[in-house]
Amino acid sequence: MPRIHFHQQLAALKDKLLAMAALSQQALEFSLNAYLTLDVGLCNHVREIEAAINAAERDVDQMAYDLLAKEQPMAIDLRFILSVIKINGDLERIGDQSTNIAQRAQSMSGLPQISLPIDIPAMGEKVGVMIRCAIQALLEADARLAEHVLQLDDEVDAMNHAVQDELLNVMQQHSLVSEQALNAIIISRNLERAADHATNIAEDVIFWVRGSDVRHKFSLDEAD
Amino acid sequence: MPRIHFHQQLAALKDKLLAMAALSQQALEFSLNAYLTLDVGLCNHVREIEAAINAAERDVDQMAYDLLAKEQPMAIDLRFILSVIKINGDLERIGDQSTNIAQRAQSMSGLPQISLPIDIPAMGEKVGVMIRCAIQALLEADARLAEHVLQLDDEVDAMNHAVQDELLNVMQQHSLVSEQALNAIIISRNLERAADHATNIAEDVIFWVRGSDVRHKFSLDEAD
Repeated sequence: MPRIHFHQQLAALKDKLLAMAALSQQALEFSLNAYLTLDVGLCNHVREIEAAINAAERDVDQMAYDLLAKEQPMAIDLRFILSVIKINGDLERIGDQSTNIAQRAQSMSGLPQISLPIDIPAMGEKVGVMIRCAIQALLEADARLAEHVLQLDDEVDAMNHAVQDELLNVMQQHSLVSEQALNAIIISRNLERAADHATNIAEDVIFWVRGSDVRHKFSLDEAD
Repeated sequence: MPRIHFHQQLAALKDKLLAMAALSQQALEFSLNAYLTLDVGLCNHVREIEAAINAAERDVDQMAYDLLAKEQPMAIDLRFILSVIKINGDLERIGDQSTNIAQRAQSMSGLPQISLPIDIPAMGEKVGVMIRCAIQALLEADARLAEHVLQLDDEVDAMNHAVQDELLNVMQQHSLVSEQALNAIIISRNLERAADHATNIAEDVIFWVRGSDVRHKFSLDEAD
């Protein structure tokens, strides 16, 4: 029963990718908590999760490669495996963005704490929703839910732009807190990039489900 | 003679990827020229190249998918096609970084011009060398040349860090030029990210040539 065996392997690949997604989501949540609490222990924990993500990325790639080599899948199964390879890369990069946020949080922990007129948690929350929806869309083969992720990306882009403008203004008015403002600018950009990776995942789900390529058909506010 | 036909298709795929690489390199060069000259026409030209890159990315992906679906390649050919899919994504993202640089150049063109104590062209030059070497490594199946790219990435990371420190200092001392300094910080980060994509390409070449996965075995200064 080679086909049954093959579909068990496909299911195992999907499970492995979901475990990888859980790690990436956790890394992002912890990094935002590290930013809010300036807890250096949390920053180190994000680095540990990132190491686990990197190992998981290799495993997923190897499983996908083995399936392609041994089973020579066709049509929708082939598209699914190719999507997994791409989604895997995007999840790993969400882990990278989380590590960058944790690094910035760590460097902020050594500076005087100030209150900035921006809402990083709200932005982080929206990015978290995007990642969850993108993964749910993958689980349920739901292209409409994936399209919702593309809409949320526009909102995150707008939030990022507002943060950049606000903090540039802070820097110009209060040069003493330039470093804190710059850290927050970089964290906002990291979140915006994590949102882009969630968008890539959603596009790959649409490619898998519909067999169409939606990349670059939506106008993006900023190119990356 | 199906195998001969298959190898013609593989060669066509490689040619298409090389054309894509040429576009990405061109986008980066023009974006740096736009930064140096603050020429808005050049910024628009980078956007046109980016549109061509996006179209080329879709074509390469489709060719790779068709080859996998119709020819069911094995071993080194399968690894090559999977590498092409990944390299394609990284080249597209180098195009994105270039577009971001051009956007920053455009917004700088409306500000008073100042001289900053950093050397963006030297950094851009090194990133250009990285991309060229990574592509040459692909052409010649040269894993040692690809390893050289990984070393250069450490140098670009160090340059980016020096730029960030220097420009933070400028912001703290001269809040009037905060916007110019922030633009230069973002451009430096865009270059550092383009270097990361060249590094990814080099790693994929090593995976293809040696069949080993070198990702995450080299310590990276910053996670992305």
